[in-house]
Amino acid sequence: MADLRSDADFITKAAIAAALPDTAVKKALKEFPAVKGKVVLIATGKAAWQMASAAYGELGSRISGGVVVTKYDHSKGDIGNLQIFEAGHPVPDENSYKGTQAAIDAVTGLCADDCVVFLISGGGSALFEKPLIPSEDMQRLTSELLASGASITEMNTIRKRMSAVKGGKFAKLCAPAKVFSIVLSDIIGDPLDMIASGPAYPDSSTADEAKAICRQYNITLTDTMKGLLDVETPKALDNVTTYVTGSVKQLCLAAEDAARELGYKPMTLTSYLSCTARDAGVFLANMAQHYAESRESLAFICGGETVVKLTGHGKGGRNQELALAAAPILAGVKDSAVFSVGSDGTDGPTDAAGGYVDDKTAANLAAQGVDIAEVLKDNDAYHALQKCGGLVITGPTGTNVNDFSVLLIRR
Amino acid sequence: MADLRSDADFITKAAIAAALPDTAVKKALKEFPAVKGKVVLIATGKAAWQMASAAYGELGSRISGGVVVTKYDHSKGDIGNLQIFEAGHPVPDENSYKGTQAAIDAVTGLCADDCVVFLISGGGSALFEKPLIPSEDMQRLTSELLASGASITEMNTIRKRMSAVKGGKFAKLCAPAKVFSIVLSDIIGDPLDMIASGPAYPDSSTADEAKAICRQYNITLTDTMKGLLDVETPKALDNVTTYVTGSVKQLCLAAEDAARELGYKPMTLTSYLSCTARDAGVFLANMAQHYAESRESLAFICGGETVVKLTGHGKGGRNQELALAAAPILAGVKDSAVFSVGSDGTDGPTDAAGGYVDDKTAANLAAQGVDIAEVLKDNDAYHALQKCGGLVITGPTGTNVNDFSVLLIRR
Repeated sequence: MADLRSDADFITKAAIAAALPDTAVKKALKEFPAVKGKVVLIATGKAAWQMASAAYGELGSRISGGVVVTKYDHSKGDIGNLQIFEAGHPVPDENSYKGTQAAIDAVTGLCADDCVVFLISGGGSALFEKPLIPSEDMQRLTSELLASGASITEMNTIRKRMSAVKGGKFAKLCAPAKVFSIVLSDIIGDPLDMIASGPAYPDSSTADEAKAICRQYNITLTDTMKGLLDVETPKALDNVTTYVTGSVKQLCLAAEDAARELGYKPMTLTSYLSCTARDAGVFLANMAQHYAESRESLAFICGGETVVKLTGHGKGGRNQELALAAAPILAGVKDSAVFSVGSDGTDGPTDAAGGYVDDKTAANLAAQGVDIAEVLKDNDAYHALQKCGGLVITGPTGTNVNDFSVLLIRR
Repeated sequence: MADLRSDADFITKAAIAAALPDTAVKKALKEFPAVKGKVVLIATGKAAWQMASAAYGELGSRISGGVVVTKYDHSKGDIGNLQIFEAGHPVPDENSYKGTQAAIDAVTGLCADDCVVFLISGGGSALFEKPLIPSEDMQRLTSELLASGASITEMNTIRKRMSAVKGGKFAKLCAPAKVFSIVLSDIIGDPLDMIASGPAYPDSSTADEAKAICRQYNITLTDTMKGLLDVETPKALDNVTTYVTGSVKQLCLAAEDAARELGYKPMTLTSYLSCTARDAGVFLANMAQHYAESRESLAFICGGETVVKLTGHGKGGRNQELALAAAPILAGVKDSAVFSVGSDGTDGPTDAAGGYVDDKTAANLAAQGVDIAEVLKDNDAYHALQKCGGLVITGPTGTNVNDFSVLLIRR
């Protein structure tokens, strides 16, 4: 019991630590190649300051200069000789454009022996932008696309063409210098052309597709826009190395490592979890039933983001609900536990990061007169878990790479 | 595509074949020990005739005699020198008692060198019974217990004490002869004291517990009943070997074997699946996303019984709904398929046993104007699967050991 809980806490701590921007950047920079020429650092996104600071800690005086563009109030001070910009998010503003122009200036005129360390995190779409059309035209275009019913992919196909940096164009501006791109992923499946609109990732959409979309949705186009729609985006970028880090996959891998260290045989089931929270909990508990007779300790890990079906007005979050739903079934499986945690430390509108239950939880709650089925119906997992010491509290963690859920069977 | 479907059909066929009573009994009898004395065959339950017939085929003239008690219309003719009784189910009748008495007579007076082959399948609780109290008392007791709010386990604790054969007592009657018991399980988790009320399985409930239950629910007791409540049921049976077969676990194992034969690396996730059909489908598809880059062919297998949440009035079943719910997500995973099948060949009120989808299904249905989300909302999986050749039709199979669901990733 106490052991299972401390195992869960150990795994939680290790998984979140591995997903922190600092850890992620340091790990990625282990792969950083030898560079003969200059090293320029460009960072953008909500975690840009933290990533840049970590990179500076690793590369230090090797960095000749660079630019950080992050959200307002997200800079925590100077980093060596880097220029730091705070700018508008989610709507770009003049500071976004100024910061981005400074980044373009910093990578202009580099030679093939030089290298740009490019640090990308979520929010970069707004923070890192240089529109090729007047901003009032950009605003109108965005509104028209939103109203047209175009999909997010279709919208991006158009918008990448109106930008000087999106859709792989920033990497083109860096050439002939090499680009070592570290992407802190916060989107399940790590779609690299979506994160910050992929300034250093080849764009697979074509000019013909872009024009077809504008025809289909009857989008008003200025002459400049028409001209830009004809320009092809980079389909390949031979100067870029991309290192994806801090993704939910790595969260799962870190949980695997931590579980292995504790003597469990770990297996990640999925890093794309998207079903309802309750059924994910039941599924994991069903696995516990099947593996109840296992002679070795097992850890089954899921990453992703479940969905809560609201049927009541209680207090909780998807991770707490997932864990609580597993409790009645786990009651029949000796020394088993399910816990589920949001990597940002916040699960729903609560101060908990998630929930923990084990084979003793259902009896504990029953003895206190708590009916788990009723609690779930009211989406009130928080109060039930509070009563049995099942809340997982981490405080804000400084990262956000979705959730992880773990079934432990200890032998 | 065609390959994935034929793989699914091969696995389906193999899994169901392994779960047929005939196959199951033949497999179990491979473990049948050498017997010096007589071999007596006793079979009860809905599959009793089929199991007895298979056992007779294996052991033939080695069987000196025996008794089969099955449901009305479930005998398909004579089997050697066995006495065959058809009787009432789910309510026992005079023929149940006559058949059971014949079985008791057949095992009375055996010696330690003799062996009783005891074949048990679902329905045996009603078919195999000799009450120790008048049947009108038994009926009243059952009604009182039902009305009292006692749990099924509590009810069985009482009823086992009112029976001459339940709760391990039949095996006692066979002693000193050995009992080779083959149980065709149709309950998830194979609770051997529940299947046919465990005539050859030790009873873990105590006389004290039984009396406490009667006090708690204020059950009216005749003097005979009071006396019977004092008699302890067998806590251990050293003359019984139990072989559980045809269970959902074996369905999963058979699916594993078939998948392995086709070059997949198989793994059973659970044989206790009990979440909603849709979310089980989504979970399996989420696993497909995670393992999309796998270099080896993978098969993930679940057994159990999912639940359908009725939100519409369409035609379908839990297996069809599970498969269809996986289709939109599988669209992104090359050469992947999910299929789910009821082992009895019937899924919901349809002529299909289940459903099959793969990475092409969503596009196929979209091209026909079918919106999968809308179909699921209307619980109308049957018609959608029909439009894309996704129905799995087997016809009645002659067995019923729950469902199995499989994710295939072919490389």
